[in-house]
Amino acid sequence: MRDFSQDHHWLSINTATVRKSRGQDLPLPQIIEACVARGIRAIAPWRDQVHAAGLDVVSGLVRQHGLQLSGYCRGGMFTASDAQGLQAALDDNRRALDEACELDADCLVLVVGALPGALEGRAAHKDIARARAQVQDGIAALLEHARAQHMPLAIEPLHPMYAADRACVNTLEQALDLCDAIEPRSAGAMGAPALGVAVDVYHTWWDPKLQQGIERAGRDQRILAFHVCDWRTPTRDLLNDRGMMGDGVIDIPRIRGWVEDAGFAGFSEVEIFSTQDWWQRPHEEVLDTCIARHRSAV
Amino acid sequence: MRDFSQDHHWLSINTATVRKSRGQDLPLPQIIEACVARGIRAIAPWRDQVHAAGLDVVSGLVRQHGLQLSGYCRGGMFTASDAQGLQAALDDNRRALDEACELDADCLVLVVGALPGALEGRAAHKDIARARAQVQDGIAALLEHARAQHMPLAIEPLHPMYAADRACVNTLEQALDLCDAIEPRSAGAMGAPALGVAVDVYHTWWDPKLQQGIERAGRDQRILAFHVCDWRTPTRDLLNDRGMMGDGVIDIPRIRGWVEDAGFAGFSEVEIFSTQDWWQRPHEEVLDTCIARHRSAV
Repeated sequence: MRDFSQDHHWLSINTATVRKSRGQDLPLPQIIEACVARGIRAIAPWRDQVHAAGLDVVSGLVRQHGLQLSGYCRGGMFTASDAQGLQAALDDNRRALDEACELDADCLVLVVGALPGALEGRAAHKDIARARAQVQDGIAALLEHARAQHMPLAIEPLHPMYAADRACVNTLEQALDLCDAIEPRSAGAMGAPALGVAVDVYHTWWDPKLQQGIERAGRDQRILAFHVCDWRTPTRDLLNDRGMMGDGVIDIPRIRGWVEDAGFAGFSEVEIFSTQDWWQRPHEEVLDTCIARHRSAV
Repeated sequence: MRDFSQDHHWLSINTATVRKSRGQDLPLPQIIEACVARGIRAIAPWRDQVHAAGLDVVSGLVRQHGLQLSGYCRGGMFTASDAQGLQAALDDNRRALDEACELDADCLVLVVGALPGALEGRAAHKDIARARAQVQDGIAALLEHARAQHMPLAIEPLHPMYAADRACVNTLEQALDLCDAIEPRSAGAMGAPALGVAVDVYHTWWDPKLQQGIERAGRDQRILAFHVCDWRTPTRDLLNDRGMMGDGVIDIPRIRGWVEDAGFAGFSEVEIFSTQDWWQRPHEEVLDTCIARHRSAV
């Protein structure tokens, strides 16, 4: 396992972590500037933040500072209640893919979507199996485009508490089954696959089959990203109460050990959504804490 | 699949559902009275409610009205940070078992516990594998006592969002693996096992392997209880925002169909924790709604 205690060479900041500073929106160019000032070598920006600043502006900053993108957040949301909706989702995913290419991201992260309308509190139906079938079809369609552009797609299994409204892929095993269904790997396959997974400790730490899933993902070279934060007790909100590494109950070093044993050697990406706590603090403090905790708790 | 549309013969009320009426605590004898007045044949009371009313009083009411108990809530919480804590947990579980026998419950439901101290926000450690091993040891020890008393133990896998603080058994597959580890079933085993599971749609609906797990549980006669409520979108609180059947996104009839195909023919137990909504209403309205929804949405 790599020694993170001496530097933050392998730290990436998911820009949602400092989406707000002292409760106010923080534009992506300022986030990038603050990261660069601290010697942080990689980020994972969100699409809405990129769009607000302008893709060309962000692309210019990324090149100027030689930043790497541990991922681009995010494609997905493949489900819909009609054919028009499915097509619109696919079109939007193609644009996300083009943006990821323009930014030279390591992968496009996919939050796959769930029951259409549920995020707005008006689920069009209750058939999660149908949603899962739509997700499979959507990823398969997008994969053609992704292969042509040499941009890997990373399915991110989300915690089961998001199964209704954000992602109906909820375990690493399920994500890997999906990968195998869409892009089978023959034994001894050469070269990296175009489809893989993002392993986020927040979404997967509870899973009794996590270690097994990580080993399987490693064998097939499917681990495209590794995300960290922590699980607070109590957790006060289903979406926006993630903890800073070290402040919760996840044994992050153990999971990182499994991921590295499985062959992953990329960035450890910090992704924290925190309305009540970290988004209320100055972003400088948040970034400095990410660096310190990357060394001590990841 | 049984027809529930004409009556509420197979309805059971988990008494937490009407723990409060108009925001005020409702004593168990009044809950029982209100259920009996509506022709509800079964309940599943919580230990704290039984203790508050007195075990002998509750036992008398149950016999007087010929009520069935679809389960007794609850044993479990087997984990601890030292040997003394483990022994105390086991002793308490034996008392719960004795109470379940006194009330002639169908089973003792087990919410197995998780990281010791996490429920109080002070987890003693982060080793969920250790917690899971303690759970296995605790159930194995309790099972001796349970067998002697002919009281089945029902492991209830809880939603993964409770993995840190309430139960580190989080999928039906994991619960069944635990059953098999503690009490192996040989092919063609005669008689019902002493150890099984409670399938709660709230905890399990998201699971891509749910149907498969239910089929497996049925083959080994492990389904001891079936609990219903609904998953609201949005869910405003991790613990106390369960929805009334029909008000959320769970396809309850589909899951009930699987459970019945697997051989379960017992009660459909309504268990709703709802600080903001149902616990604020008069309990009479809540019970009447349970009856109506049992017919239309279960």
